[in-house]
Amino acid sequence: MSAKIRLYVEHPLGQGQSVPLTREQAHYLFGVMRLSVGGQVALFNGQDGEWLAEVIEAGKRGGVLSCVEQSKPLQLPPDLWFLFGPIKKARTDFIVEKAAEMGAARIMPVQTEFTNSERIRQDRLQAHAVEATEQCGGTFVPEVADLQRLDRVLESWPEGRQLMFCDEAEVGSALRLAGNETDQPWAILIGPEGGFSERERARLAALPYSHVVSLGPRILRADTAAVAALTMWQQALGDWV
Amino acid sequence: MSAKIRLYVEHPLGQGQSVPLTREQAHYLFGVMRLSVGGQVALFNGQDGEWLAEVIEAGKRGGVLSCVEQSKPLQLPPDLWFLFGPIKKARTDFIVEKAAEMGAARIMPVQTEFTNSERIRQDRLQAHAVEATEQCGGTFVPEVADLQRLDRVLESWPEGRQLMFCDEAEVGSALRLAGNETDQPWAILIGPEGGFSERERARLAALPYSHVVSLGPRILRADTAAVAALTMWQQALGDWV
Repeated sequence: MSAKIRLYVEHPLGQGQSVPLTREQAHYLFGVMRLSVGGQVALFNGQDGEWLAEVIEAGKRGGVLSCVEQSKPLQLPPDLWFLFGPIKKARTDFIVEKAAEMGAARIMPVQTEFTNSERIRQDRLQAHAVEATEQCGGTFVPEVADLQRLDRVLESWPEGRQLMFCDEAEVGSALRLAGNETDQPWAILIGPEGGFSERERARLAALPYSHVVSLGPRILRADTAAVAALTMWQQALGDWV
Repeated sequence: MSAKIRLYVEHPLGQGQSVPLTREQAHYLFGVMRLSVGGQVALFNGQDGEWLAEVIEAGKRGGVLSCVEQSKPLQLPPDLWFLFGPIKKARTDFIVEKAAEMGAARIMPVQTEFTNSERIRQDRLQAHAVEATEQCGGTFVPEVADLQRLDRVLESWPEGRQLMFCDEAEVGSALRLAGNETDQPWAILIGPEGGFSERERARLAALPYSHVVSLGPRILRADTAAVAALTMWQQALGDWV
């Protein structure tokens, strides 16, 4: 059995479990998608895998689903952080969408010297990560962190975590690994529009855990660079192969 | 010397060459970007590389630039076709933008069994390819072909051109090469929303020149898949490393 509608809920899922719907979810399922009692939905909450559920009550302001069977186990992504400099609104939304689809475990907007944004709408970006997960069939929703200064993030960098630093001023550097980095947690960092400052580049390249890579000879938009960098990493170290 | 504004023109470029502007280009340079006589622009036409040019006449309805010096030679991309099933409008625009940024030489919308679109706006998509090339610093503009049926394209497939077929029903297949494919022209094919039909998948997998690859365990939106597939190819066979 399978259901085409996938819905993220903040409620435990399990055999026979009843799941109450918010007003918004009820509107989506019964108003927009025209489901009624007996209709099927795939639910996930980021923790219990994906469950096939059936509508047992449908109303304008709410409703109840009941879990029938688990349709997918929880699939955790690799322990990968995705750091990026936020740019203008629509493109930042895209970056979060892409990072969720491509299987980042944690999405971290960082303020660099050339970042325009002073703040982000964390709730809005988190909603984009949820929507992307609903769409791509994933069972884990990456957390979108609040905006932090890049230098602060580097000051409290966890021991052992490797960093793939995508430097657009670099040409022709592939991801080269000594071998022991494959078992370690990782992070990817892509720059904002305008790239990194000279000071930042020098600091980033000198970090003992950083691996400088090039994303080709053309200058990529930040949302394109996000997918390219995540592809490179997933192919070499992640869950793609 | 370098100029921040890059403009595509349909005019020969060369030492001392005068380049007349269309009304639209004049509006952009003098109205929007506030350039005046003596201002600098980087021009490219897809054939003569990039030229630094100076404004010598500026008007509301037109103007003239004069080429000062070549700032970049013509850089041709690898001989790579990018085939995709068009989807709803905004995402199709993105796919063309991404393919141009990522260095495809020819962009070919194809109609598959599950493609919704019966037609595309070729002129509009070509304009997106031009804009992406202006933005990414490229000197070659990929041609966007008209919509063709996938089966027709396969019937007249050129001898020797290899095909990287991105099959979302496939899991864990990397691009594996025997060795002699590296000197040959290539094409990439990604599916529309809903993927390929069983009949299409079987036919595509059986082609002697096709190489089936997986784009990971999550289902990617078509514009994400475009960048992921192009990254995979550029890293293995293209101009990235």
